[in-house]
Amino acid sequence: MTPRPQGPETGAPARLGSAVVIGTGLIGTSIALALSEQGVSVWLADQEPAAARLAADIGAGTVLPDPLGATGQDGPWADLAVLAVPPAAVAPSLAAAQARHLARWYTDVASVKALPLRQAREQGCDLATFVPGHPLSGRERSGPAAARADLFLGRPWVICPGPPNPPEAVAAVLELVRCCRAEPVQATAAEHDRWVALVSHAPHVVAAAMAAQLTGAPGGALGLAGQGLRDVTRIAGGDSGLWTQILAANAVPVAGILADVAADLAAAADALATGGAPQAAGHPSLKPLTGLLDAGCAGVARIPGKRGAPVRDNAVVQVVIRDQPGELARLFQVAGESGVNIEDIGIEHSPGLPVGVAELTVRPDSVTRLTQALAAAGWPVRR
Amino acid sequence: MTPRPQGPETGAPARLGSAVVIGTGLIGTSIALALSEQGVSVWLADQEPAAARLAADIGAGTVLPDPLGATGQDGPWADLAVLAVPPAAVAPSLAAAQARHLARWYTDVASVKALPLRQAREQGCDLATFVPGHPLSGRERSGPAAARADLFLGRPWVICPGPPNPPEAVAAVLELVRCCRAEPVQATAAEHDRWVALVSHAPHVVAAAMAAQLTGAPGGALGLAGQGLRDVTRIAGGDSGLWTQILAANAVPVAGILADVAADLAAAADALATGGAPQAAGHPSLKPLTGLLDAGCAGVARIPGKRGAPVRDNAVVQVVIRDQPGELARLFQVAGESGVNIEDIGIEHSPGLPVGVAELTVRPDSVTRLTQALAAAGWPVRR
Repeated sequence: MTPRPQGPETGAPARLGSAVVIGTGLIGTSIALALSEQGVSVWLADQEPAAARLAADIGAGTVLPDPLGATGQDGPWADLAVLAVPPAAVAPSLAAAQARHLARWYTDVASVKALPLRQAREQGCDLATFVPGHPLSGRERSGPAAARADLFLGRPWVICPGPPNPPEAVAAVLELVRCCRAEPVQATAAEHDRWVALVSHAPHVVAAAMAAQLTGAPGGALGLAGQGLRDVTRIAGGDSGLWTQILAANAVPVAGILADVAADLAAAADALATGGAPQAAGHPSLKPLTGLLDAGCAGVARIPGKRGAPVRDNAVVQVVIRDQPGELARLFQVAGESGVNIEDIGIEHSPGLPVGVAELTVRPDSVTRLTQALAAAGWPVRR
Repeated sequence: MTPRPQGPETGAPARLGSAVVIGTGLIGTSIALALSEQGVSVWLADQEPAAARLAADIGAGTVLPDPLGATGQDGPWADLAVLAVPPAAVAPSLAAAQARHLARWYTDVASVKALPLRQAREQGCDLATFVPGHPLSGRERSGPAAARADLFLGRPWVICPGPPNPPEAVAAVLELVRCCRAEPVQATAAEHDRWVALVSHAPHVVAAAMAAQLTGAPGGALGLAGQGLRDVTRIAGGDSGLWTQILAANAVPVAGILADVAADLAAAADALATGGAPQAAGHPSLKPLTGLLDAGCAGVARIPGKRGAPVRDNAVVQVVIRDQPGELARLFQVAGESGVNIEDIGIEHSPGLPVGVAELTVRPDSVTRLTQALAAAGWPVRR
């Protein structure tokens, strides 16, 4: 299915003819798979040769020769080099790749942008050919085996072109984003770093701080845990060493947000200590707490829906199902025959009991049709 | 299906013969539905008579006569009265119900326990007949129309018997819990309040404080939001007035946890400001940050799985699906025929594109069978 590279192309193609992916982890291999699917000749390199070979084995491209052979004519080895390495490795990788004359243009995928750019400048890299980038893939697994050509499908991909970049450099990176079917977002490196501090880095620490309160919790308390606690703390489960690196590389914006959140929580604690029981809930010192909760509601309402799509005003239909093979098939058979498209689905199981509740999310104008079809087929259904 | 009340029963039944539910919102009506399904004669009351009539209309019981008629013999009107009213209304409701000699035993469902108990004592209620309770239902919708007899199925239900309660009072409330198919958990009122502060009340404020940071966020930042931010902030979207009441009624334990979280976040901010870029990630002042992240991982690992069941070591199989009616039916048809039980399912949609990825959660020993069956039927499948 995936065209194998025929060898690097040269000249000045309107489209990417060839690319080198340096670092064949999850992100690099997924990019290589997407580029290969689009007919781009992809070369693969990794400091662990076995990782590059594994990526090649699953169809992501061809292992980059070392040393490089002649390209057959003047010019760089490939059109674009993608540095899919950790933030601290971007500048040295860029310097090494530029020294080898590996590509015409360069980009990276690190989750912080200002620090690698500054380090590249300090190491004397050619910043005219380097357009920093960051695809927001949101996948929690890692390694080339978890790679998918559609990893970036519909997701934002920030690129940070600067004054030294000629239009051709930006066009090459935009073409990379297009090949990966992601949505390009242009921002400065400083803007990017403030944005991800707010939507990714600070939330991680906040989740960890709440989860840390559970370490000494009595078993009785944990037995009462519901979906709310699980949601608030879910992302706290990541690799603490890796996250310390990420946070340290974006220290100033993250520290600012964490200090603000800490101040708000300290104020909420003070408000409760002053105005809580046995006083009435209308005690004036509780106003800052209510204000924080209102601001929280307003903030949540501003978050777009899944994968950046606008929030849809969907409705949920609940169906009681038995916990056995074939039950969902029968359910979806009926739903499909009614012509209703299921937008999302969740299942709530009841431990020790042979039933669960399937929650089918549909467009509001489909609710009546779906509930009637399900009820007619004998399903216990509830809006 | 649901037996209609034949009138209150008297005597000393081993099981609950009759119950009065005061407050026919979501919780009260769901309890009434569950009791009615178990053959208990249920009487319904609400300060809004229309709410009680609506609950009766959907089969939850019979509207309580006002004034009460004679019971036909000596003794209270019903075996058990369930006060399904907000925390601040528990003590006055209990006093009024006891004055009417409404039931032999009393319980409530408020989400805090120490404050209503203290208020009931201050109002001169008979504490021997009152066993405080709190079912943890976790449902976000409200009102009798959203009620379900299985709302408490498999969920914890804390009861707080005290020294004044005779065994018969505790047995009556345990029977209520059994009828609702919930899992009884015994704790003191103070223990309960500390536990819910940790797993419910404090997480709500922490989520709100993070979400509040988004109110002034640039659109570019919000466009990068992923599932992590959505999860951390989801529960912040509740009614701020209601939540202020809940938090104020459990002020001391909540304030203590919030102060601890605030201190941890302030320390993390300080660590980043001191030890972040441009220093290396190994800077010693970052150690408290890494320690907090490690504690977060440890805390998350202690949370039991959905609905309190032990976390199962499940596996996920991914299938690319088209976003159209009938697609899931075909998928589950194949899965069902393979004899594999689907434990959970999620769908990731890609806006503007006619495909999505269904993630099927199955037992690890079912992965091979499921992937082979799906692949044989032509589905693009990936572990």
